Amino acid sequence: MTNAPSALDIARKLVQCPSVTPEEGGALAYLDTLLSPVGFQVHRPVFSESGTPDVENLFAKLSHGKGPHLVFAGHTDVVPTGDEGLWTLPPFSGEVKEGMLYGRGTADMKGGIAAFSAAVLQYLAEHGEPEGSISFLITGDEEGPATNGTVKLLQWAADKGEHFSDAIVGEPTNPDAMGDAIKIGRRGSLSGTITVTGHQGHVAYPHLAHNPVTIMAQIVSKISAAVLDHGTDHFQPTNLEFISIDVGNEAWNLIPKKATARFNVRHNDLWDAQKLSDFVMKNAKDCIPSSDFDVTLGLIPSNADAFLTRSDTLIQSFSESVKKITGRTPEHSTDGGTSDARFIKNYCPVIEFGLVGKTMHMIDEHIAVDDLKTLTDIYYDFLMRYFPPKG
Amino acid sequence: MTNAPSALDIARKLVQCPSVTPEEGGALAYLDTLLSPVGFQVHRPVFSESGTPDVENLFAKLSHGKGPHLVFAGHTDVVPTGDEGLWTLPPFSGEVKEGMLYGRGTADMKGGIAAFSAAVLQYLAEHGEPEGSISFLITGDEEGPATNGTVKLLQWAADKGEHFSDAIVGEPTNPDAMGDAIKIGRRGSLSGTITVTGHQGHVAYPHLAHNPVTIMAQIVSKISAAVLDHGTDHFQPTNLEFISIDVGNEAWNLIPKKATARFNVRHNDLWDAQKLSDFVMKNAKDCIPSSDFDVTLGLIPSNADAFLTRSDTLIQSFSESVKKITGRTPEHSTDGGTSDARFIKNYCPVIEFGLVGKTMHMIDEHIAVDDLKTLTDIYYDFLMRYFPPKG
Repeated sequence: MTNAPSALDIARKLVQCPSVTPEEGGALAYLDTLLSPVGFQVHRPVFSESGTPDVENLFAKLSHGKGPHLVFAGHTDVVPTGDEGLWTLPPFSGEVKEGMLYGRGTADMKGGIAAFSAAVLQYLAEHGEPEGSISFLITGDEEGPATNGTVKLLQWAADKGEHFSDAIVGEPTNPDAMGDAIKIGRRGSLSGTITVTGHQGHVAYPHLAHNPVTIMAQIVSKISAAVLDHGTDHFQPTNLEFISIDVGNEAWNLIPKKATARFNVRHNDLWDAQKLSDFVMKNAKDCIPSSDFDVTLGLIPSNADAFLTRSDTLIQSFSESVKKITGRTPEHSTDGGTSDARFIKNYCPVIEFGLVGKTMHMIDEHIAVDDLKTLTDIYYDFLMRYFPPKG
Repeated sequence: MTNAPSALDIARKLVQCPSVTPEEGGALAYLDTLLSPVGFQVHRPVFSESGTPDVENLFAKLSHGKGPHLVFAGHTDVVPTGDEGLWTLPPFSGEVKEGMLYGRGTADMKGGIAAFSAAVLQYLAEHGEPEGSISFLITGDEEGPATNGTVKLLQWAADKGEHFSDAIVGEPTNPDAMGDAIKIGRRGSLSGTITVTGHQGHVAYPHLAHNPVTIMAQIVSKISAAVLDHGTDHFQPTNLEFISIDVGNEAWNLIPKKATARFNVRHNDLWDAQKLSDFVMKNAKDCIPSSDFDVTLGLIPSNADAFLTRSDTLIQSFSESVKKITGRTPEHSTDGGTSDARFIKNYCPVIEFGLVGKTMHMIDEHIAVDDLKTLTDIYYDFLMRYFPPKG
C-alpha cells in the first residue's frame, strides 16, 4: 500500500465519469474499486421515489475497535456542462493545463472526494486501520432534487444501526484561496410564490378592472426594501431576493387577472419557514387596497432551516489542521448556498471544508493541482489528530 | 323586401361565425349574401403584409344619384373566447336566454353591424334607394394588429375614387344603457415595453449580482402612482396601466439578468407619443440606482393619437335620433378604447354609437335583445334624417 493513488489521479478518474445528476456515470463504481481492496465494506444502495429518477449511492465503512466514527460525505453527481463548445478543455476529459485541473465537478466536488479518499488511503498505508470507524457517505443526488440521495442514505445507515460521531463534507468552502473558511453551519433557504388576483378587463376601462400588476409591483418593492435583520453572531443578515415576476399577458389591451412573484430567502437562525411566511404575507397584505384583490402565498417544501454545528472539538481540531497546512486561520462561516450538510446535521456534528469554489457550476470549472494536494494534506493532518496512530 | 331579416336574426348568424382575428369565419361571406341581393356592389379585398396574417375585408356600396355618402363601419373579427368551459352558453352558439343574446362579439361588435344592416335593409324595403350613397366598410382586423384592415381598406377605397361624407362606427359606446353616450373622438393609445438589465448571479451571493426584478417593481410602482393630468374639456384624465411584468426565470436559485414590463396609455390631447415616452423614461431612470443597471424603452408603433370630430351637424343629428328613440340625451364622450374611427377620421367626420359594452371581451359577453331593437331603430331614424324619403 505504499503506492496509494494520489488525489490528482483519483480526481482525474472521477472527472472522466460523466455523472450529471442523476447519472452514476461510473463514479461510484470507481470509488468501490478504490475502497474495497483496503478493507472497506462497500454498499451501493439505489433509492427510488415515484416521479423522480432512481439514484445510486455509496456507503463504505472500515471498522476496527471501539473508537469514534468519522464520516466523509459528498456527492459525485455534477451539474450539466452547459455548451461544451465554450469549454477550453472538454468538461469530462480531466486534463491538466498550466497547473489547473479542468472539468465539470473538479471544484464541486469530485476534487474534495479525491482529496479525502487519498488522505484516508495514505493514512491506512502508513498507519494501518485506526481505532474506530471511517465511513464514506457519497450520493449521486445532491445537485438534483436531493430526494433519492443523502436523506435516504442517512436513514438507510441509521436503520442498519450506524451511529456517526462527526462528519466532514468536502464541498468547496473557500471563496478565493485554501484556508479561507470552514463552514460550521448554513443559512436556511426558503422559496415561495406570491400570487395576486384582481379582476381582468379592457385597458381602456380601468375602473371596471382591478390590476394585479400594480399591486404586485408594490408588494415586491415593499418586501425588497425591508430589512429583515442585521445578522447574528455566526450568520450574515437574512436576504430575500425576488427572482421572477410573471404575468404572461400577451395582449396589449387587457388588464390581466393575475400576477405572480417568486422569491428565495437565505436566512439566519432568527428565522424559520413559519416566521418568514408570516412576514411575507403581512407585507403583501399591507399592499392590498381592497377586497377586490386577493393575495396568496405558496411555499416550496424544503428541508433547509438554518443550523449551526455545536461541536467546538470538531471545529477547533479541523481549524488547527487548516492552519498547520496553509498557515492561515480559517473563518468560521455560515454563508453561501445549501448543501447536504443540512441533512447530516440531524445525525452528528458536521463541518464542511473543501477546495476553492470560484468556478463551480461555470463553464471551465477548474481547480489548482496544488490546492488539491493542500486539501489532501489538511484531511490527512486531521485524520492524524482524530485517530492518533498507535505507538 | 317586406320580410327583411331582423337585427336579431343577423346578429345570431354573425355570432355563429367563429371569426376570431384573423379568421373570416364566414361572417363577411354572410354579409355579402345579405347586401348583394338588395343592390349593393360588394367587394371583398384581402390585404397582406409580411409578418402578419392575410385578412379579408368587405366594402359594399349602394349608389343612387348625387346625395351624400354615408358609411357604416365596423369589424366582424372578435377577441378569443378564453376558457370556453366558463361560458354559460357556448360562445359561438348565438343563443338567447332570458332576453339576452350570448356570444363572443355580440357587443363588440357584431350586434352593431346587425343593427345597422337591419336598419338599412328596412329603409330600402320601405323607401327604396336613397338620393346618395350608403356604404359598409367592414374589416376582419380590428382586434388584431389592425395592419391589414381599415387602414388599407380606406386607402383602397380612396384609390377607387370613393369620397365619404360622414361615417358611423357601430362600436359599443354605451357604458350601462342605450342612450348613454355617442363617441365624438377618442383618447390616444400608446403601448411600450420597459426592459431593465442587471447582472445574473446565484441567489446565495446577491452582492455578486444586480437584481433587475426589484428595480422593475420600483419603476412600475412609481409610474403607476404618477398623476399624468386631470383631463381636458372633452377628454378624461390620461391613464397608464402596466399590463404585464415578465422575467421568465424558471430557477429558484438564480437572480435573473433581465426583467420586462409592458404598459398601455390611454391619453388625452395634452400628450403624444414623444411626450409620453419622455415621461416614462424619466421616471424609469429615476429608479436606476447605478450604472450596474440599464433601462430601455421600446414603443409599439401606433396610429392612435387623440382626436376630436368637428362636425356639429353629424353629432347633433345623431344625438336627436338617440333622444327620440331612447328619451335620453347622450353624452358626447371621448373615453374608452381606440377603434378604427382613429383611421376613418382622416377621411371624413366620424362618430361612434352602438350597444352597451359592459361585457365586451369578457366570458359570457352578451347584449339585451331589446337593446338590439333600440339600436336598429336609432340607426333607422338617423337614416330617415340623413336621407329624407322622397315625397
